Amino acid sequence: MLVLQKYGGSSVADLDRIRACADRCVATAEAGNDLVVVVSAMKGETNRLIGMANALVEHAPADADRGPYVTAAKRSVDHDRELDQLVATGEKVSAALLAMAIGDRGGRAVSLAGHQLGMTTDRTFTRAKITDISEQRIRSELEEGRVVVCAGFQGTDARGDITTLGRGGSDTSAVALAAALGADVCEILTDVDGVYTTDPRIVPRARKVLAMSYDEMLELASLGAKVLQIRSVAFAKKYGVRVHVRSSLHEGPGTMIVPADEVARLRGQNGKQPMEAIEVSGVALQRDEAKVTLVDVPDVPGVIAEVFGALGSAGVSVDMILQNASRNDRTDITFTVAEADLESATTVLTGLRPGGEELTLATDRAIAKISVVGLGLRSHAEVAAKAFGVLAADNVNVQMVSNSELKMSVVVHERYGELALRSLHTAFGLDAPSR
Amino acid sequence: MLVLQKYGGSSVADLDRIRACADRCVATAEAGNDLVVVVSAMKGETNRLIGMANALVEHAPADADRGPYVTAAKRSVDHDRELDQLVATGEKVSAALLAMAIGDRGGRAVSLAGHQLGMTTDRTFTRAKITDISEQRIRSELEEGRVVVCAGFQGTDARGDITTLGRGGSDTSAVALAAALGADVCEILTDVDGVYTTDPRIVPRARKVLAMSYDEMLELASLGAKVLQIRSVAFAKKYGVRVHVRSSLHEGPGTMIVPADEVARLRGQNGKQPMEAIEVSGVALQRDEAKVTLVDVPDVPGVIAEVFGALGSAGVSVDMILQNASRNDRTDITFTVAEADLESATTVLTGLRPGGEELTLATDRAIAKISVVGLGLRSHAEVAAKAFGVLAADNVNVQMVSNSELKMSVVVHERYGELALRSLHTAFGLDAPSR
Repeated sequence: MLVLQKYGGSSVADLDRIRACADRCVATAEAGNDLVVVVSAMKGETNRLIGMANALVEHAPADADRGPYVTAAKRSVDHDRELDQLVATGEKVSAALLAMAIGDRGGRAVSLAGHQLGMTTDRTFTRAKITDISEQRIRSELEEGRVVVCAGFQGTDARGDITTLGRGGSDTSAVALAAALGADVCEILTDVDGVYTTDPRIVPRARKVLAMSYDEMLELASLGAKVLQIRSVAFAKKYGVRVHVRSSLHEGPGTMIVPADEVARLRGQNGKQPMEAIEVSGVALQRDEAKVTLVDVPDVPGVIAEVFGALGSAGVSVDMILQNASRNDRTDITFTVAEADLESATTVLTGLRPGGEELTLATDRAIAKISVVGLGLRSHAEVAAKAFGVLAADNVNVQMVSNSELKMSVVVHERYGELALRSLHTAFGLDAPSR
Repeated sequence: MLVLQKYGGSSVADLDRIRACADRCVATAEAGNDLVVVVSAMKGETNRLIGMANALVEHAPADADRGPYVTAAKRSVDHDRELDQLVATGEKVSAALLAMAIGDRGGRAVSLAGHQLGMTTDRTFTRAKITDISEQRIRSELEEGRVVVCAGFQGTDARGDITTLGRGGSDTSAVALAAALGADVCEILTDVDGVYTTDPRIVPRARKVLAMSYDEMLELASLGAKVLQIRSVAFAKKYGVRVHVRSSLHEGPGTMIVPADEVARLRGQNGKQPMEAIEVSGVALQRDEAKVTLVDVPDVPGVIAEVFGALGSAGVSVDMILQNASRNDRTDITFTVAEADLESATTVLTGLRPGGEELTLATDRAIAKISVVGLGLRSHAEVAAKAFGVLAADNVNVQMVSNSELKMSVVVHERYGELALRSLHTAFGLDAPSR
C-alpha cells in the first residue's frame, strides 16, 4: 500500500511526541507500505513566528476572518510574501526533526520542504491555491526505500517563492499529495479519535462516527468541527481520496471519510450500527451568530439585492436568510451573521436607503443555531417533523428554519441551545449505547 | 554603488536590533546605493535548533572540531542532510523579518532563502563548498528597486537540497555574493568596531587597524581572531573583494581588508599612522596549545612521515614543528597541538614503532604561543631580533620559534604569555597613543 500520514501540530508538539510519530512511521514502513508523511509545525511555533512579525510591523489588531494573520494599512504583497517565507519555516523544522528521528530508529527518511515537494501554487501569499503537483522527487525517494517527510502548509509559486495554504493548510497538503500520488489512504493523525456525532463536551453520549461522506464532513466542518480544514475535504471529494481521521496516540480505527456509496457499505460492516438506523451523522451547535431583522421593507426587486450586496462588499458573510410572505407588497427579512460582524452589519445597513426608505432594524445576539447533518436528510419532511416534535416537547420555540439536501438548521433562544442539541442527538439515534 | 552588508547574529539578536538594521538598510538605499544584505540567524537560534536535533538522536558529545555539530556513530549523510534542512531555517526567519521591517519603514525589500539565492554548492552537508552563483534573481530584484535580503550560511545542491557552509558561513555567503555581483564593498557589520592589533581585554592599549591585507587577516583569523571566518577571507582574497569590518551600532569606519598594495595607500591617507611606522598589524596570544617532544628518535627518512601521518589520520592537527639538529643520526622532534587533542595524540604516538622503536614522549600543557603578524615581517631577521631582545629584557625564555612570510610565533611558559604579548605590542609600535 501507499499510505499518506499527516501529523498535526499537537502530534509533533515536542521531541517526545516526535519520537512517537517516528515509531509509528517506522512501524508503518516495516509493515511493507510506501509511506509519505506530511507534518505541521510544532504546536505554538506558527504563532511564535507570526507574533514576531506582528510585533515588528506594529500593525492593527488581527483580522478575525484570517485568524492571527495580520491585516491593516501596512499590509502589502511584499509583506505577505515575507510572512510566508517566515511562517513556512515552522513546518521545515518539524519535518527535518521527524526525518532525523526516523533515522535514529533505524528507518530511512528524507524531509522535503516547499521548494522540493513539487507543489506549485499561485502567487496568492498566505492563502495560495495549488495549481500543480509534480511527484517525481517523492516517487524517486520512495523507490530508494525512504519515508518521505513533507513540510505541510506550503508550496512554491512558479518563481520559486514560498507560499502557504492558509491556516490548517497541512490538511490540504496531505490530501493533495495523496491525490497526486494515488495513495490508498490519507490518514489524518490527530489528538482526537475521529469525527464525533457532536461536541462530547456538551453531549457526553456523543459517539464516534465510523464512516461519513465527503458532503456530510463538509457540512460539519462548515458548522465548526475543527478536525479537518474544509478545503481539504472539498479536495478529497474532488479526487476521491479516502481520508481516515484517527488518533496519533493509539492504533484504533477512527472515522473514514469516503464517497457516499461506500459509507453505507462501511457502516453495514459494523454490527453495532444497523444500516437503517442511520439517517443523520451529526448535530452541531453554534452560539456565535446573531440575528438581524429588517422590519417592513418594500417587497420589490432590487431591495434584497442592495442589502446583501452592501453586506458582501463590507466583508460580512450572511448565513441563514428567511423572508416572510409578503403583505401589501411589504415584507420582513431576517438573516444571521457572525456575532463578530454584527456591528459592521448594523453600520452598513443604517447607511442604506433601499427604495428610498431608511431601514428599520431589529437585532438579537441571544440566539443559538442547531444543525442536523446527514445523507438521510433527503427525506426532508420526515426529519423536519421529527425535529419540530422533539423541540415542541421541550417547549423550545423555533425562530428560524433552513433546509438543504444535507442539513437542517434551526435557530432558538440561546438559553435552549444545549438542551435542543441533546434532545436532537437522542432523537436521531446518535447516542452511544449506555454501558 | 552596489553595497553588500552582512549582519551577524548579535546584530539581529532581537526585534529591536532588527529594526535598527532595517533603519541602516533604508538609509543606505536612500543614499542611492543598490543594496544586498546577508543575515545570520538570530543569536541563539542556531544553537536552539541544533540542540533539538542533538536531543532527538541521543548521540555522543559534540565534536570540538566542528563546534556543536553532532558527531558519533549515528551520523550519516541522511542525518547531515536533515541537519542542514533544519538549521538553515534560522537564517530564513531573520531574513524574512528584516525584509518586513524594511517594508515597515517605507523601504522595499525581498528576502531570498537558500533555494532562491542561486547559490549552488556541492553535496557535502554541514560544510558545503560553493560551486556556482547565478545572480539573475538578485539582479532583477535590485532592478525593481528592492533591497535584497539573503539568508546567509546556506545554498542548495544541484538537486535542490539545502546545504550549509559550516559555522560562520554567513561571512562566506556575503563575500561570495559580493564577488559574484561585483559589489563595490562587502561590509561585515558586527558588534565590534573592527579588527584590533590584539585582544583589548589583555592589552588595553590595543588599537583598531584601519587597513589590513587579506594575508594578514588570514593569519590573524587562524590565530583565533573571531571577527571573520577564515574561509571568507580566502574567498575575498581570491576574488579581490573589498571587505569592510565595522560596527553595526554606529556609522564610524572600521577595518578595510583589501589587497596588499592598497593597504599602504589607505594607511598613508591617515595622518595618525605614518607609513614607515607600520611593519606589524597585530599580535595574538593562544593558550590552548600543548607541546609534545619526541625524545631521541632515529633521524632516518620515514620516521617523521610515519609520526605525522598517524596524527593526521587520527584527526590531530599539528601546528608548529621544530626538529633539532641531528647528533649521531638521532634527534628530538618538538611540535604543538591543540590542548584538546593532546590525549588522542599521546594515544596515537604510544602505539607507533617508527624504525622499530618505541617513542619516548614529553608533553607540556603549560605553554603560550605569541604570534606577530604583518606584511613587514618580510624582513625576518630584524623583526626576530627585536622580539628576542624584548623578551630577553623581560627575562622570558623562548622555547620554540617559527617564522613565515607573514608571521613569527614564539612559544613561552604559560605564565609569561600576557607579559610577552603586551611587551611585543608596545615594541612593534601598536599601542594606541596615550590620552
